[in-house]
Amino acid sequence: MNTTQIIEARSGAVTDEMYVIARMEGKDIEYIREKVASGRVVILKNNLRTNSTPIAIGEGLKVKVNVNIGTTNKKSTIDEEIDKVRISEQAGADALMDLSTGSYIDDTRTSIIQTSHLPVGTCPIYQTGKNTLDKHKNIAKLSKEKMFSDIEKHCKDGVDFITVHCALTRFALMQLQQQKRLMGIVSKGGAMLACWMEATRKENPLYENFDELLDLLRSYDVVLSIGSALRPGCTQDSFDRAQSAETIVMGELVKRARETGVQVMVEGGGHIPLDKIIPTVKTIKEYTDFAPLFIHGPIVCDCAIGYDHITGAIGSSLAAYSGANFICSSRPMECLESATTVHIKNGITAAKISAQSADLAQEEENAVKRNKEIAIAKTEYDWKKQTENSIDATVFDGISPAKKKKPCTMCGAYCSMKSFKKVN
Amino acid sequence: MNTTQIIEARSGAVTDEMYVIARMEGKDIEYIREKVASGRVVILKNNLRTNSTPIAIGEGLKVKVNVNIGTTNKKSTIDEEIDKVRISEQAGADALMDLSTGSYIDDTRTSIIQTSHLPVGTCPIYQTGKNTLDKHKNIAKLSKEKMFSDIEKHCKDGVDFITVHCALTRFALMQLQQQKRLMGIVSKGGAMLACWMEATRKENPLYENFDELLDLLRSYDVVLSIGSALRPGCTQDSFDRAQSAETIVMGELVKRARETGVQVMVEGGGHIPLDKIIPTVKTIKEYTDFAPLFIHGPIVCDCAIGYDHITGAIGSSLAAYSGANFICSSRPMECLESATTVHIKNGITAAKISAQSADLAQEEENAVKRNKEIAIAKTEYDWKKQTENSIDATVFDGISPAKKKKPCTMCGAYCSMKSFKKVN
Repeated sequence: MNTTQIIEARSGAVTDEMYVIARMEGKDIEYIREKVASGRVVILKNNLRTNSTPIAIGEGLKVKVNVNIGTTNKKSTIDEEIDKVRISEQAGADALMDLSTGSYIDDTRTSIIQTSHLPVGTCPIYQTGKNTLDKHKNIAKLSKEKMFSDIEKHCKDGVDFITVHCALTRFALMQLQQQKRLMGIVSKGGAMLACWMEATRKENPLYENFDELLDLLRSYDVVLSIGSALRPGCTQDSFDRAQSAETIVMGELVKRARETGVQVMVEGGGHIPLDKIIPTVKTIKEYTDFAPLFIHGPIVCDCAIGYDHITGAIGSSLAAYSGANFICSSRPMECLESATTVHIKNGITAAKISAQSADLAQEEENAVKRNKEIAIAKTEYDWKKQTENSIDATVFDGISPAKKKKPCTMCGAYCSMKSFKKVN
Repeated sequence: MNTTQIIEARSGAVTDEMYVIARMEGKDIEYIREKVASGRVVILKNNLRTNSTPIAIGEGLKVKVNVNIGTTNKKSTIDEEIDKVRISEQAGADALMDLSTGSYIDDTRTSIIQTSHLPVGTCPIYQTGKNTLDKHKNIAKLSKEKMFSDIEKHCKDGVDFITVHCALTRFALMQLQQQKRLMGIVSKGGAMLACWMEATRKENPLYENFDELLDLLRSYDVVLSIGSALRPGCTQDSFDRAQSAETIVMGELVKRARETGVQVMVEGGGHIPLDKIIPTVKTIKEYTDFAPLFIHGPIVCDCAIGYDHITGAIGSSLAAYSGANFICSSRPMECLESATTVHIKNGITAAKISAQSADLAQEEENAVKRNKEIAIAKTEYDWKKQTENSIDATVFDGISPAKKKKPCTMCGAYCSMKSFKKVN
């Protein structure tokens, strides 16, 4: 205990987790150790966690997919969340976050951690703010002590990564207020802290007491995911100086975390039009010394309500191709209603398509091989091999030609591959 | 008759269609006339057609969406196709293509043209090749005369644009054969012609008799859409010299068409990984002197079978942002089975999201306004205005808060916009 993957890697040691990851990624073990030592790769694995497969996120590795689950109101049950864990694993998510704001937050979290084989993340301030928001109390009454004790509770329960909005400073908030954004703050945790900071006229306690936060996380090797409080809620608000002010502080905090042996990644995303995705990703990467980037969306237009999995897939493909490493999947009804298991599956599948597309464009070896194999299987009408190599194999359930070496019903006799073979 | 939009525009005349289009696009009439005269914009409107609203495609205009419909086997009926026309109009397609290969091709086409208010396109060689392919006859028996008489029949029936694979030359085919593509030719029309050319050892009759083709099209002002016979069928085959050889000839033919007063666009797309979309689009645009580009897909990875609407949306957003003007929507099961109306709707919606995302990124005025309005409506919990501005308004059917000025059920009391408003 009280050591972390980055501390071990820097000392030249290779941990069990690094072995597992080197095999999963098809990389040399020394490559993984060096990347972890540099901080450009993080490994999600709480020291106390025993039932999960660790994953690594960052430069040179396959793009990973996260899914958000969690209760949202008094009606939601722990059983429903356990169903969501199972669906997420089946659909191929690499990690999940429990963002519960409903009843029984503690029990929900521990049940999810016990059930899931995937790394689990949380956003502890959702729990800290619960009574305040539910009962319309003054948010200024939230104490620094409560914030930290909730974080510690989550760490002790075994969460592998936590989102903390520690880079939202008074300076960044001032930039926001001067700018007259259309949608202000759309991060829930960020909005809570902004309200607290405005009401108390004080600096963000998670920024002011950052060393204390680092000590806590180091004890369990929980990866710090620096939350993006000022990510844009609509395309017009994107790539502004408020977000940039927060990103600058992220860079400062990444350096301090790495120096003290805490693994750290940064968050970004939101609603970003296509032309601003590459500049946004490059800015975050540069300012944060290429820390692993956990991207939400980016949603590339505001008016496709109900289709966030598609606007998110468009944005995250381009973001991941230009440097983002960890995609937070968007459900179709992301900003409209609570998650259903069907929507969770659709969201994960769309994000996995993005991840695969970005990997392919970066010529990641496994992605190139997989896409080549499926192309050959198509020319051979080998439906079995197509099914095996498909992102979602369930698509083939009930498709008529699936077991015969015949063209599909789309083109039939007109199959161009069939015609062309005769003359080539 | 025997005049065309480009001939009129060059003479300085403004046609009725240009008036309609200037209003629809929110552009100055002279802007439209100049673009049409230059050939960088085409107007889809057969001289004989009376029941359609013309649309314009090209530089500086909103990105448009096409949908492919048509019978594919003996079981399919004309009534089903008429249903597809209605669904396509409801879902907001800008044009449709009847690619029937089933029974009653002539009756299907005329029924579609009579029913549709949208411009209609066809690919006449599907009809020309029908008996050959259905009855496994020697494809070399297809005659140039039959190819041209089918084209003329379609023009006389009122189709507004036709795909003709006239840029597939023996030179391009030789490049293809030398390269050992994984998937060869995946264009149905292209494969038919390639087989004919290989079997007869002759040059493509649609290239050799291009002037005759132009004379035909000019009589009806049917827009020539130069088919992309060598578009890649898998990501590994993309951006190769075979396709480039065909694109060079497209450029040659674009020049000849424009010079003789025939409106012309070019086709491209297929399976293209993210990193090759911009180079592919820029190459086509440069070689063809910025002719309007009709893009299929691009599908950005091969292994997301059953999700072509998503891989297509990812690719077409980036393609349209970098210069493509007309997106051919991809259905979820595009290369697996015949179209259902649900899949047609899903495909159109995904393509409209791409078109809107590209327009927004190019700061097209209407797109900026629409996205801004919906962002403001979100902050005001104005569900009515959100519905009105949404790409698919049916998403809101049955959503509980749709009529109240309250936050959605996703965040509820945690709504960041609500919290933040109190302090900003």
